[in-house]
Amino acid sequence: MARIAVDAMGGDRGPETVVDGALAARADGVEPILFGSPSLDTKGLRLVPTTQVVAMHEKPADAFRQKSDSSLVRAVKAVADGEADAVVSPGSTGAMLAAGLVLLRRVPGVRRPAIAVPIPARRGPSVLVDAGANADCRAEHLLQFATMGAVFAEEMLEITRPQVRLLSIGEEPEKGNQLTLEAHELLAASDLDFRGNAEGRDILEGAADVLVTDGFTGNVALKAVEGTIRTLLDSLREEITASAAGTVGGLLIRPAARRLRKRLDPDTYGGAYLLGLRGLVVIAHGNSSATAIANAIRLAARGAEHDVVGRLAARLPQRAEIV
Amino acid sequence: MARIAVDAMGGDRGPETVVDGALAARADGVEPILFGSPSLDTKGLRLVPTTQVVAMHEKPADAFRQKSDSSLVRAVKAVADGEADAVVSPGSTGAMLAAGLVLLRRVPGVRRPAIAVPIPARRGPSVLVDAGANADCRAEHLLQFATMGAVFAEEMLEITRPQVRLLSIGEEPEKGNQLTLEAHELLAASDLDFRGNAEGRDILEGAADVLVTDGFTGNVALKAVEGTIRTLLDSLREEITASAAGTVGGLLIRPAARRLRKRLDPDTYGGAYLLGLRGLVVIAHGNSSATAIANAIRLAARGAEHDVVGRLAARLPQRAEIV
Repeated sequence: MARIAVDAMGGDRGPETVVDGALAARADGVEPILFGSPSLDTKGLRLVPTTQVVAMHEKPADAFRQKSDSSLVRAVKAVADGEADAVVSPGSTGAMLAAGLVLLRRVPGVRRPAIAVPIPARRGPSVLVDAGANADCRAEHLLQFATMGAVFAEEMLEITRPQVRLLSIGEEPEKGNQLTLEAHELLAASDLDFRGNAEGRDILEGAADVLVTDGFTGNVALKAVEGTIRTLLDSLREEITASAAGTVGGLLIRPAARRLRKRLDPDTYGGAYLLGLRGLVVIAHGNSSATAIANAIRLAARGAEHDVVGRLAARLPQRAEIV
Repeated sequence: MARIAVDAMGGDRGPETVVDGALAARADGVEPILFGSPSLDTKGLRLVPTTQVVAMHEKPADAFRQKSDSSLVRAVKAVADGEADAVVSPGSTGAMLAAGLVLLRRVPGVRRPAIAVPIPARRGPSVLVDAGANADCRAEHLLQFATMGAVFAEEMLEITRPQVRLLSIGEEPEKGNQLTLEAHELLAASDLDFRGNAEGRDILEGAADVLVTDGFTGNVALKAVEGTIRTLLDSLREEITASAAGTVGGLLIRPAARRLRKRLDPDTYGGAYLLGLRGLVVIAHGNSSATAIANAIRLAARGAEHDVVGRLAARLPQRAEIV
C-alpha cells in the first residue's frame, strides 16, 4: 500500500479539509501520513506533529531554510528518508520545489526538474510541461521535459505511446524563437513520437498528449487559459442575469454549465507534478476541496505504484550523451 | 481626408466583402483606395489595378520578393510613395511585415517594429505588444515596445497616461526570466507609468492599458486566450444542446451570448497594428466581415489623423542613449 506524506497545513481551506480528503483516499487503499499541528483532529489517521507552517507569500528559499519543522518541509523529508513513497501539499509551489531539490535531489541524468500540469483538454487529457519551474531553458532541457512528460502520460494518464508537440508560434518547423527552433531539431531526432509544433490556440482544444515548453512560456500560457475560462464564465453570467428571460435561461442551462465546469476542473487531475526528483511531488491547488485533495493523494499513490520516478530514471540516461 | 490603401484581395471572404467595408468607411469621411484585380467591381471607389495575390500560406520573404505587383505589396508601396497615409490588409501578417520593413522602413530610433493587438478586456480595451513580430528580444526592445504601445493607447484608444505592465510569471519584480527581469528594471527607470508585472490570468480580465512582452510569449498568450474563448463557447453549446431543457435555456440566453460575443469580438478594434514603421500598417483578420474591414479602415484613418507615426518618432529618440 502506497504511503503518501500529506502536508495538512498548506491549504487555503484549513487542515480539516485536508484531513477529510486524506480519509477519502484511505478508503481507496492508500495510506496517508499527515504532517501538521499536534492539536489537529486527524480522525484516526497517522499524524506526524510539526510546529511550523509555510505561508503562500513567503520566499521559497527562505521558507525552506527557516522552517525545517514545517509541515511542508517535513512531509518532503519523509519521502527523502524512505518513510513515504510520495508527497502531496496544497502549499507553495516554490517552497515545494526548493525543498524537493535539496531534500530529494534530482534523478541521475536529470538536468532540471519540471512542473507537469495535466490539462482537461476537449479531446482528452494532455500534460503541459514545464508549467513554471524553469524560467530560462536550453533546448536540451526541453527534450528532457518532453521525455519526463511522456513517462507521466504513459503511467499517470494511461496513454500508450504519447504524442508530443512543442508549444510555438506556428505549426511550421521554422516558426519559433531560437530555443524552440533548436528544441524542434532535438525532438525530431529523438525516439519520442514527436508531431511538430502546436500553438497557443490548441491548448484547451487538445494539442497533443504532451505539450512541451519552457517554464516561462508554460506558466504564462497555463494562466492565460485558466484566467480566460474564469473571465469568460463570469462575463457570461453577468450578461445572462441582466435580463429576466436570460435569468430563466440561465437556470435551464445550469446543469450543462455544471457538467462543463466539472470537466474543466483542474482538480480532477490532482494539481501539478514535480518531475525529475527522487520521489514524486504533487502540488494541489491552494484552495483544494477535500475531493481535490483525495484525487491528488490517489494520483500520487498511482505514481508511486507505477514507479514513475524509476521509469524516468530508466528513460533519461539513454540521452545522457546529448545533454 | 485620410487616404487609406486597402488590399482588396487578401481576405478569406473575397474582394467583394472588402469593397463593402471600404464603402462603409467612405461614408464616414475616409478615402479608401482599393488595390486588386482590374475586373473588380469597386462600386465607384478608386481602384489601383494589380495582377498578383499573396496567399496566406506563402513564405513572407518569398511572397514579397516574387510578387511585387500583388495587391498587398502595392498597397504598402502606396504608403511609402506618399500616395496613401496608411494601409489596411486582411492578408498575411508575415508578408505585411516583410513588405513594411523594406518599403516603409523603420522610424528613426526604432530597433524593431512590433505588432500591437488591442484586447477587448473586461475592464476596458488594452493593447498587447509585441504580439508576434519578434520571437527573440532583448530588454531594450521591450522598453521600445512599451513606449510604442503607450503612444498607441493614447492616440488610438484615447487613454490618457496609459498604465503599462510587463507580462511575466508572478507579480513580484523578482519573478520572471532573464529577459523580463532586465526589462522590468528598464521600465521602472523609464518615464512610462509602469505598474509592474502582470500574469497570463490577467490578459482577458484587463491587466493594464499596455501589456508588454516579447513576440514569442505574446503570440502564444494571445492565441491561448483566443483559442480558450472558442473552445469554451463550443463546449458550452455542446453541453447545452445535449438536453431539451438546456436547448430552451440556450434560446433564452442567446441575446446575452450575442452581447458577450460582440464585446469580445477582436474586429471591433480593426485587427493588429504594425508599429515602428514610417507609415501605419493595419492587419485585419483573414476572415474579416465588411464591418471588420470598415472598422480597420476607420482606425487606420484615425491613426493617420492623430499622426501616430510622428508621435512615435518624437517619443523614441529621447531614449536613444539607452538602446
